[in-house]
Amino acid sequence: MPTQATDPTPAQPNDNLSIARAARLWPIEEIAHRLGLPGEAVEPYGRGIAKIDLTAMTALAESPRGRYVVVTSMTPTPPGEGKTTTAIGLVQGLQRLGHCAAVALRQPSMGPTLGLKGGATGGGHSQVLPMERINLHLTGDLHAVAAAHNLLAAMVDNHLHHRLAPELSPRDICWQRVIDLNDRALRHLVLGLGGRGDGVPRQGGFEITAASEVMAVLALADSLADLRKRLGRLIVGLDRDGEPVTAEQIGAAGAMTVLLKEALKPNLLQTLEHAPALIHAGPFGNIAHGNSSIVADRIALHAADFVVTEAGFGADMGGERFFNIKCRASGLTPDAAVLVVTVRAMKYHCGQHRVIPGQPLPTSLLAEAPGEVMAGGANLLKQIDNVRAHGLTPVVAINAFPGDHPSEVAAIRELCASVGVRAELSTHVRDGGEGAVALAEALVEATEGVAADTDAFHYLYPDELPLVDKIERIATRLYGADGVDFAPGIRERLASWEARGYGVLPVCIAKTHMSLSHDARLLGAPNGWRLPVREVRLSAGAGFVYALAGDIRTMPGLNASPAATRIDIDDEGNTVGLY
Amino acid sequence: MPTQATDPTPAQPNDNLSIARAARLWPIEEIAHRLGLPGEAVEPYGRGIAKIDLTAMTALAESPRGRYVVVTSMTPTPPGEGKTTTAIGLVQGLQRLGHCAAVALRQPSMGPTLGLKGGATGGGHSQVLPMERINLHLTGDLHAVAAAHNLLAAMVDNHLHHRLAPELSPRDICWQRVIDLNDRALRHLVLGLGGRGDGVPRQGGFEITAASEVMAVLALADSLADLRKRLGRLIVGLDRDGEPVTAEQIGAAGAMTVLLKEALKPNLLQTLEHAPALIHAGPFGNIAHGNSSIVADRIALHAADFVVTEAGFGADMGGERFFNIKCRASGLTPDAAVLVVTVRAMKYHCGQHRVIPGQPLPTSLLAEAPGEVMAGGANLLKQIDNVRAHGLTPVVAINAFPGDHPSEVAAIRELCASVGVRAELSTHVRDGGEGAVALAEALVEATEGVAADTDAFHYLYPDELPLVDKIERIATRLYGADGVDFAPGIRERLASWEARGYGVLPVCIAKTHMSLSHDARLLGAPNGWRLPVREVRLSAGAGFVYALAGDIRTMPGLNASPAATRIDIDDEGNTVGLY
Repeated sequence: MPTQATDPTPAQPNDNLSIARAARLWPIEEIAHRLGLPGEAVEPYGRGIAKIDLTAMTALAESPRGRYVVVTSMTPTPPGEGKTTTAIGLVQGLQRLGHCAAVALRQPSMGPTLGLKGGATGGGHSQVLPMERINLHLTGDLHAVAAAHNLLAAMVDNHLHHRLAPELSPRDICWQRVIDLNDRALRHLVLGLGGRGDGVPRQGGFEITAASEVMAVLALADSLADLRKRLGRLIVGLDRDGEPVTAEQIGAAGAMTVLLKEALKPNLLQTLEHAPALIHAGPFGNIAHGNSSIVADRIALHAADFVVTEAGFGADMGGERFFNIKCRASGLTPDAAVLVVTVRAMKYHCGQHRVIPGQPLPTSLLAEAPGEVMAGGANLLKQIDNVRAHGLTPVVAINAFPGDHPSEVAAIRELCASVGVRAELSTHVRDGGEGAVALAEALVEATEGVAADTDAFHYLYPDELPLVDKIERIATRLYGADGVDFAPGIRERLASWEARGYGVLPVCIAKTHMSLSHDARLLGAPNGWRLPVREVRLSAGAGFVYALAGDIRTMPGLNASPAATRIDIDDEGNTVGLY
Repeated sequence: MPTQATDPTPAQPNDNLSIARAARLWPIEEIAHRLGLPGEAVEPYGRGIAKIDLTAMTALAESPRGRYVVVTSMTPTPPGEGKTTTAIGLVQGLQRLGHCAAVALRQPSMGPTLGLKGGATGGGHSQVLPMERINLHLTGDLHAVAAAHNLLAAMVDNHLHHRLAPELSPRDICWQRVIDLNDRALRHLVLGLGGRGDGVPRQGGFEITAASEVMAVLALADSLADLRKRLGRLIVGLDRDGEPVTAEQIGAAGAMTVLLKEALKPNLLQTLEHAPALIHAGPFGNIAHGNSSIVADRIALHAADFVVTEAGFGADMGGERFFNIKCRASGLTPDAAVLVVTVRAMKYHCGQHRVIPGQPLPTSLLAEAPGEVMAGGANLLKQIDNVRAHGLTPVVAINAFPGDHPSEVAAIRELCASVGVRAELSTHVRDGGEGAVALAEALVEATEGVAADTDAFHYLYPDELPLVDKIERIATRLYGADGVDFAPGIRERLASWEARGYGVLPVCIAKTHMSLSHDARLLGAPNGWRLPVREVRLSAGAGFVYALAGDIRTMPGLNASPAATRIDIDDEGNTVGLY
């Protein structure tokens, strides 16, 4: 079969582009109207895009709340298993069943789009539009995050320069700068050089905008006032006595809030089948919670019957943070979870295939091998269990790829059935919403089992559990570790934060997303290992503690042939090379 | 008189804010419709703001071209003489006379707004709206310029890192990075530190976004294809043989163009009296030409009867570049010029008052002193002559301030009459368009004297004049210098550019805007001095050579109490402290 001899990606990038180009956008006001948003809260921002003013939350407060669905996945292969396409396909499927359904997604980062990976707007017949605007700038929210973040950085260095009170220790400044580009040369630098009038020399660096704590704050704030409060709590460094200094003390939090006023309004777009799509905020999935915004979900929940939101990476990563960080911050509880699997990821987790990030998956993954699917199933079963650890039984979505064999799909169904989980094949990439109708039906059934007032959902740990125990609970209960090894000084550091009142915060463990463990080479559901925590940091503004269990790169680089070299305009002014 | 005992600013910042807050914006579609723009070319971007697609140029190509008016000024005092308010007041005055008139302005830079100076949206009853959006982000054009600029920078460092061909010399890279903030600590830095995987260590730095050559390119491009061509010509550094390396060779120009596609569309807004305002591009007024975009002017000229555009700083600076750089690039010729003067600036130029930038003007400027006005008049007469050097006789607008005395205004009128120039008092800040009706009538009369086909306008120098002679002609003919002293090596450098075909480019002299000379302390119309040119640079993308005749700072710093510390939201979520 020729489709198997090549890259098993279901739709080639050029197919995505031609499908997107052939699509006719509906006026965004029409999408907003069908979603029931008050007209005065809808502010068009170019063709097919609007911002939703937060007054919509008040206007819709009395409307019944829709069903809240999170899409997560098994531990992914490097190219990913299609959570975004599945979330988009699912709302299109729900729409075909007559429901008003909205999808809530993160905004993709521009840097990687210009670097290696191409855009992040779905694929095939499950895409959000307009692709070009989503992948580049959109309505400028990422730029606003960078501006607010870097204003604080400039004010911190200005604070040093003018020796303002409280006196900062130049070597204890933890607030870096950010830019939405892959620019390795900015990772480590010495700034403040020149003469006496050019600042105080010190080490510094840039991270990509998605890694900014301001981005995490934007995603977790539930109002403008809450945004203001969180920004004030951002810690920029230590004073001469070792006490934390905040953005409030630097005098930056008000101006940062004003810079983020437009960015706090969720962006409304549409899928290929004109289902509403809210694309808003894009925090990192390792050092932050990797979920789109609370305000977008909240608005959508009071407007739609179903809101489907995607959580970054696997159920142990974005899924866990959705439950324990995002839902804890919002007070919203999910009604159902969808767990995306693919035949190829199941085979990948059997550990017999060599996969190189940035390269097509090996053709060995294409041979019919239901036994490999079963062998790799340990990962799926563990991730199903990870969702169940929060009181929800997921619906498994088998995201169909052209190279899949019926025997392999059957193996997945069998595995799921063995643990009482419903699994549905979804061909939304090839068929759009029609291909996701079976999945949508399964989902509706799953949510019907959940009575609004006797919700089974629960957090993995209570607020009052000590920080060390929170980290251990995630590591042992979700990752399958035998325990946690804290580097010297970490326990003391966590205890000092508890003494300052930060002990009630949830935790976020920054590790590879390629394994349930901290080691990307350990596939399936590894046993007999311990999680090493080498460092902990406090995101006091966003409201979580994060523990580093791996080498997390917060500023990517470009390869020798970046995507940007192939992006251009043609003679008619159309964009080429961006997908 | 109590109004004289305080800061003589005509409307206090809080007045500006309360006037702006009380205003009711018309739907921007209504403004666009009255301007005759085709509906499909108008893309709303939030309340009261739209982008105009460049298809409007084609759609309007057959419409008659309106009158093209440039607003310039005498050499300003530190707080400025109100060119922006005059341009806005003038279109409101023209509108009261029944004309369709549009104002075309630069987009203010965000960094200084958060630093010292407050916003740049006019004042009193001559403002453009919405103020907050204009001063912060607007539609993201400055962010797009920074993204395109910094993408090229990242690709240059990536080029070094991977040792791609042509091989760049790390010490000959001239392409800096940019950010739209006042951040002195980024002026000089060493980047590429860390390990082998973190780039090549070298010196670098950041400038403010307005100083980016990409900004100058955006303002001068007359189509998307022209933008693409100019970006390709940007010079990033030298190769190992000392030959220039361009953005085209780095492979960045296509992606930069795509990043700027939305930014190339002019922004449409409105004045307090609902006159159309096109706010687009904001290049520096010293190292670049300091004028708003050609595409905005071109679209407006085919839609309105009168287009009034502001050129940065005095007639020797932005005015000169409007005539010799912007009009040369566009092929458009101006029909009239307005030269803004104030009583206080006339007195300032008599040289008897000590004015400190960033502080209120001294109260000594408020005493009735028509003799001082006459003494300072040398500057006005020279700037009138500078406009006349291009074939146009300006209309002088006396921008009224509360502290002005009738005898002083009469002195200005007398001085102008002595050289055959009409001068009108304009109270547009206090009275809106009604206060500018006399000025508008004088302007209409001035343009009626200009027959479209026998236009008196001409450039100061022809393309083929050698670069050295172009610099000398501007210095001697406009600035009043006795000659130019070129630092060693400059003449050779200019000759080498001529040998490469750059000799046909116009020149831009970067000097202080506070004096006709290069020395801010020399007021009036100084004689007996020579212009020192210490360095020349080639803006091959924008299409001009610039000569540095002073210490031009391209990255401002913050003072010990930046404006940002006073910007915040109030309990209702309204922005406070931004004006």
